[in-house]
Amino acid sequence: MKIICSKSELQKSINISMKAVPSKTTMPILECVLIDASMEMIKFITNDMELGIETLVKGTILEKGIIALDAKIFSDIIRKLPDNDVTISADENYNVTITCEKAKFNIGAKSGEDFSYLPIIERENCITVSQFTLKEVVRQTIFCTAPNDNNKLMTGELFEINGDILKVVALDGHRIAIRKIELKESYSNQKVVVPGKTLNEISKILSGEVEDVVNIFFAKNHIIFEFDDTVVISRLIEGQYFRVEQMLSRDYETKIKVNKREFLDCIDRATLFVKEGDKKPIIINILDGYMKLSIDSQLGSMNEDVDIDKEGKDILIGFNPKFLIDALRVIDEEEIYIYLMNPKAPCFIKDEKESYTYLILPVNFNAAR
Amino acid sequence: MKIICSKSELQKSINISMKAVPSKTTMPILECVLIDASMEMIKFITNDMELGIETLVKGTILEKGIIALDAKIFSDIIRKLPDNDVTISADENYNVTITCEKAKFNIGAKSGEDFSYLPIIERENCITVSQFTLKEVVRQTIFCTAPNDNNKLMTGELFEINGDILKVVALDGHRIAIRKIELKESYSNQKVVVPGKTLNEISKILSGEVEDVVNIFFAKNHIIFEFDDTVVISRLIEGQYFRVEQMLSRDYETKIKVNKREFLDCIDRATLFVKEGDKKPIIINILDGYMKLSIDSQLGSMNEDVDIDKEGKDILIGFNPKFLIDALRVIDEEEIYIYLMNPKAPCFIKDEKESYTYLILPVNFNAAR
Repeated sequence: MKIICSKSELQKSINISMKAVPSKTTMPILECVLIDASMEMIKFITNDMELGIETLVKGTILEKGIIALDAKIFSDIIRKLPDNDVTISADENYNVTITCEKAKFNIGAKSGEDFSYLPIIERENCITVSQFTLKEVVRQTIFCTAPNDNNKLMTGELFEINGDILKVVALDGHRIAIRKIELKESYSNQKVVVPGKTLNEISKILSGEVEDVVNIFFAKNHIIFEFDDTVVISRLIEGQYFRVEQMLSRDYETKIKVNKREFLDCIDRATLFVKEGDKKPIIINILDGYMKLSIDSQLGSMNEDVDIDKEGKDILIGFNPKFLIDALRVIDEEEIYIYLMNPKAPCFIKDEKESYTYLILPVNFNAAR
Repeated sequence: MKIICSKSELQKSINISMKAVPSKTTMPILECVLIDASMEMIKFITNDMELGIETLVKGTILEKGIIALDAKIFSDIIRKLPDNDVTISADENYNVTITCEKAKFNIGAKSGEDFSYLPIIERENCITVSQFTLKEVVRQTIFCTAPNDNNKLMTGELFEINGDILKVVALDGHRIAIRKIELKESYSNQKVVVPGKTLNEISKILSGEVEDVVNIFFAKNHIIFEFDDTVVISRLIEGQYFRVEQMLSRDYETKIKVNKREFLDCIDRATLFVKEGDKKPIIINILDGYMKLSIDSQLGSMNEDVDIDKEGKDILIGFNPKFLIDALRVIDEEEIYIYLMNPKAPCFIKDEKESYTYLILPVNFNAAR
């Protein structure tokens, strides 16, 4: 195999490929990027068995071939090369030489034989969204997935298509995030659970531009994202996702309007006194025209008033401040609406159209004190 | 005590003060900043017993007093306050209230009684340098100090005044860094060893501007840096510093001129294959018109030619690449001169005037292989 590509092109492609290279694995072949120049195009393929990425690399094939190269070392080498054309060649014993200007690297590679190729999946049931939208939707929901897989379904996000609506849901047992996107056209109904890790990695690769699109294909056990020169194939999480609709209530006793920035800054200040792992609630006393936030800890106490518009009853309620901060941080609106029922019922932060809904369970702060 | 200062002024001063707050200590009082508003001015004082900092804070004293406040918590609170006037008041029981706009913090403080005040030292034997110069000199030498104190003297830097020359020396047993600065006037001779930690922390506070000055006072057991509204007092390291002059030789068999950037980039690429803690040397074969750099490891090998101008003999020599990188990174010149004797003698990187000199011991690469 012998190919020539520019450093910048290699850099771009290996950065994408690295997203599907596991940091820890017992299968060394998974730490490799497959450089496939066996056909007319150069492709980089990586696969951590859950997530697979295939990306096209612009360049010239002087001699066809295919090799598997340690992805981390390859990436390090490319990053440090001068900004010029790079020649990658491999002999029949998989000794690879990478040259660029006067620099010459020799490393050992593997044959592609053991490499676990990406599954071949028929492309049907496709929807199209902008890269901007997909990236935003993930950013605005992913923090509600559960980090560890005590409950596998909670580590993923529900992607549900209903006509021309894409609904994305994440929940971790304490809170729920829901985003609804209006699509440009209607599609057949779909309901799949995508691993949170897949969405995290895709977010990092997506350009985030409004004019760039992603085609998303729904298959039986896989979801495929196609964009730019890249295809990402991910396994789906099996199982029946939680029935979220029945957890949502449209009743409320108290509705407030508050400036998001002020509210967020105030909680941020209050959490100074909350050490990590500490479960100090922030206590919110909602009164006419303002709410009083306070927090108490061994280190000290803090209180601050925030102006609000209120409809309905006064209420005294406690929350894990982190859950409020997480939700407030991803909301773009300046003014937000919060709906409350009683000190033991979840609060809802949502806009009028319910394009976003955040449900957060309160904490029993008498017990926590 | 009751004082009012702007958030930005408090922020600036606490950032400076934090540099003398130890991260670990068995004496909780050392974790405090002393807010001294007992006289006409507001001062923040911190002291980790080796290094002490006193800095003036612009503001208004409404009620005189003095308190010791946990520096980390105080710093965190100030950082998160809105950009406005901040009122700090303490009652007779050292309950401190910090208010800014509608935010109100309550924390406990201590009396200043237990605080270890800075030693009172007569100001004599003063030299003046620009903040830029002091910051640069430290940056260009500090990496040669030894990190742990198996040999206490190696953790510090020699500051030596000889007439109008300030010489700064650091060494760690494998390499030496020397910087010589011409002062604006002649001073009485001085020779002290300043702790590396002191110099590191001072560097972070110095503005680095050419027009700002630092007054440095040399006392028996202390060195004092006075600049802007801040005084830094540091203990000196006791003992006789190493006789560096006798380690320096002006003889050489080989002299090369090389482009610093090219040489540095090349070593940087070569060290890809060197894992941390691994003692792989970089092998440099100096020939007419170019030198061949190569490195060999289990991960792979790399070689590259770098153009040079050479005087004298060819030479094959090995170095710890990190030592070369550290020195090359802080040299500002585009072209550098390297002087070599033989594969077992140190090399010297220095300019013609010897305003900087870096001595680096080679490694025996046959043994290391």
